[in-house]
Amino acid sequence: VRGHFRQNVAIHDKADETPVTIADREAEAAMRAILTEACPDHGVIGEEYGTEREDAEYVWILDPIDGTKSFVTGSPLFGTLIALMRSGEPMLGVINMPMLGERWTGVAGEGVVFQARRDASAALCRECPSLDEAYLRTTSPEMFETEGLTAQWDRLRKAVKQPVYGGDCYNYGLLASGHIDLVVEANLQTYDYMALIPIVEGAGGVASDWRGRPLTVASDGRVVMAGDARVHAQALALLQPS
Amino acid sequence: VRGHFRQNVAIHDKADETPVTIADREAEAAMRAILTEACPDHGVIGEEYGTEREDAEYVWILDPIDGTKSFVTGSPLFGTLIALMRSGEPMLGVINMPMLGERWTGVAGEGVVFQARRDASAALCRECPSLDEAYLRTTSPEMFETEGLTAQWDRLRKAVKQPVYGGDCYNYGLLASGHIDLVVEANLQTYDYMALIPIVEGAGGVASDWRGRPLTVASDGRVVMAGDARVHAQALALLQPS
Repeated sequence: VRGHFRQNVAIHDKADETPVTIADREAEAAMRAILTEACPDHGVIGEEYGTEREDAEYVWILDPIDGTKSFVTGSPLFGTLIALMRSGEPMLGVINMPMLGERWTGVAGEGVVFQARRDASAALCRECPSLDEAYLRTTSPEMFETEGLTAQWDRLRKAVKQPVYGGDCYNYGLLASGHIDLVVEANLQTYDYMALIPIVEGAGGVASDWRGRPLTVASDGRVVMAGDARVHAQALALLQPS
Repeated sequence: VRGHFRQNVAIHDKADETPVTIADREAEAAMRAILTEACPDHGVIGEEYGTEREDAEYVWILDPIDGTKSFVTGSPLFGTLIALMRSGEPMLGVINMPMLGERWTGVAGEGVVFQARRDASAALCRECPSLDEAYLRTTSPEMFETEGLTAQWDRLRKAVKQPVYGGDCYNYGLLASGHIDLVVEANLQTYDYMALIPIVEGAGGVASDWRGRPLTVASDGRVVMAGDARVHAQALALLQPS
């Protein structure tokens, strides 16, 4: 991915109008080649090359570039997402930020490690007692507009201490490291959110869909993740339809 | 600034509800100390410590942390802005990204240098013939809402190829380096935009307020900067009140 950054690569629009480049495709192909060699009986679900053996006990979920709109506009806030599910439960999640040299790795039951170049430390969410003290990050308000959720989103953004825009997967790493309190998004795909679950939950946070249900491969792509259960509950209440 | 990043510094809300930290204050004090020593008869306008000798021939304009909302949420997309005006005309502009190790320096009449750690190269805007091919970046849609400009903003964002959110001053560096085509913002202060002018214009782009007038210390804080004059003109047309 790094070698293609800011190299004026061609941008193709997929059927859903999201951009894709040779960097997305090469990075996913590279990950798939490693998995085929190392664990040929595992399943793979990837953003660019689809699904193989999704009924396997172990299934990898790959998003080679989460934040392709950042990537194609020269911003380093994009990442590679890797999740491993066992029997449908996410047991490993990785957010890798290739241009920043930062990586979060969460293993279910074992917590989260944050690596910044040569340093490594445990990542932990911070406490936040109430929504009006919460720093919220979300990638774009247009993901709510697309799904007809602008009224709910407006209620939420006006109730928090501060909404901040941009970031894609990086926002969830910032949540796991206790720099922010809440991430709310919509219109996500399975490969956008599955890796984030072991990271946010492993750091002590709470992750669900907008109705408070656990996130699964079949979720509707609306996510609420908070570092403190109190903020999660208060955000959920505002996100219900009137 | 680097030493305070992600150190859980106290966040104070200024009268305009924008956040400020000890990092903003120390960084501006450090710059002012250098200027007082090196050029005591120059004027200084700074975000945190106000105005001194604004009638001087040379006036420095300082924003120690542009993107304090990014800074306080742990994102590295914030920068230090330094401008030097002579008789009211910006002749030097610097965007320094302390966490990314990147810097744009523009000198009127001499072009723009982009430094990324140990490499340096000339920055140049790219061509873009029309708005529907333009990649647009803006920090937050709420800066338009605050000024009652949502209708104009909505017209523009729907007319471009892709709007992308977040970034603060970094967006203007990306514009000068030809990674994007357009930045439109509102509700900015003098110290938010003055350093950007020699960088965008020096890289071949066009900078103005929303009526197409040159930006000065007395502008209303609404800016349109484009890499190609055609996109600038088309964006201006959509930003006029109906």
